[in-house]
Amino acid sequence: MTIKLYCMGESGNAYKAALALELAGLDWAPVHVDFFGGETRTPEFRKINVMGEVPVMIDGDLTLTQSGVMQMHITEKTGKFGGKDAAEAREVLRWMFWDNHKLSSPAGMTRFLMNFLAADKRPAEVIAFQQGRLKAAYQTLDMHLEGRDWIVGDGLTNADMSCCSYLFYPEPFGFDRKDWSNIDRWLSHIEAVPGWKHPYDLMPGSPADRA
Amino acid sequence: MTIKLYCMGESGNAYKAALALELAGLDWAPVHVDFFGGETRTPEFRKINVMGEVPVMIDGDLTLTQSGVMQMHITEKTGKFGGKDAAEAREVLRWMFWDNHKLSSPAGMTRFLMNFLAADKRPAEVIAFQQGRLKAAYQTLDMHLEGRDWIVGDGLTNADMSCCSYLFYPEPFGFDRKDWSNIDRWLSHIEAVPGWKHPYDLMPGSPADRA
Repeated sequence: MTIKLYCMGESGNAYKAALALELAGLDWAPVHVDFFGGETRTPEFRKINVMGEVPVMIDGDLTLTQSGVMQMHITEKTGKFGGKDAAEAREVLRWMFWDNHKLSSPAGMTRFLMNFLAADKRPAEVIAFQQGRLKAAYQTLDMHLEGRDWIVGDGLTNADMSCCSYLFYPEPFGFDRKDWSNIDRWLSHIEAVPGWKHPYDLMPGSPADRA
Repeated sequence: MTIKLYCMGESGNAYKAALALELAGLDWAPVHVDFFGGETRTPEFRKINVMGEVPVMIDGDLTLTQSGVMQMHITEKTGKFGGKDAAEAREVLRWMFWDNHKLSSPAGMTRFLMNFLAADKRPAEVIAFQQGRLKAAYQTLDMHLEGRDWIVGDGLTNADMSCCSYLFYPEPFGFDRKDWSNIDRWLSHIEAVPGWKHPYDLMPGSPADRA
């Protein structure tokens, strides 16, 4: 049965699950959610996910929310992307938690504030503050990637697909991969994985639709 | 062998691991980290944890970072707090990710800005913005706890110990449990668990030390 992923191209969190589905070779299809029209905050959507967020994954009888849970579910189904032993599995999970806390959370927010809010509603002090936090996160990731091709072990894992998600987007939010040589090299490795797709090519919905 | 937890009482993220260790009945001891003196950002500390964060757990040969990874390690060791079947385990993990992303991340930051920065350095616009995000998180959690005693299933899990962590602190950051009746009731259930301790009673270090 085809796995459904409620998502939109603009969501880096949805991308984490979509990329894992795609690269695992699973049978899946995206269902576009009209986030910008307020769909995720409707009572109907809250019945599917009380958190009022995408992505949501429907796999047969299972309804999953939180991209990290979906990534681990894909690992359970396919044996892929979870690390090759218990030590790697812990390390993968470690970077997934770190990403949710320190990287994707401020990156998604800052990109939203700088690009998807009306120009006269963008809170300058908040944006500057979040960019400072993000810079500390880029430093941590770049330091970790020194001498490494992948975040954990010698191949692509959920840690990479979690941490990379917002870093592929073209909209400005204070990240330029040319400033971070190890991150830049690592992103190139991910892009070179057979079957890799950019978020706007993998899921429906992009700023171009609203232009 | 005694498990060591590098921590300080002020850290809600450290509390998640400390509370799980304590309530699981494991042999553990805190090691105080001088966060306010800058210890977590030193090169020496970065060698233990490149992320420059507490908590860090040393269990024999294992060094773990990220509270969520520690909580899952304690579950593996003891069979406790992880949910009673695969469906509950996914649900526990779901709320742990949500907490890291949407609750603990802004709560810890806002509490820091409002209480641990010099009064003339507190960024008012950032604080107001973060309090708005937090309010949305309290709403989600309160809605989920309607008619429930625990976040998942019928007893204490890592989901509760993750989401509750910053909500027990006395310093103001825009949370008053009296405003959220379901959260308030749920926090009372956690406080009533035999062996429960407040963060400042469980770990060394509190604002009183620096007064």
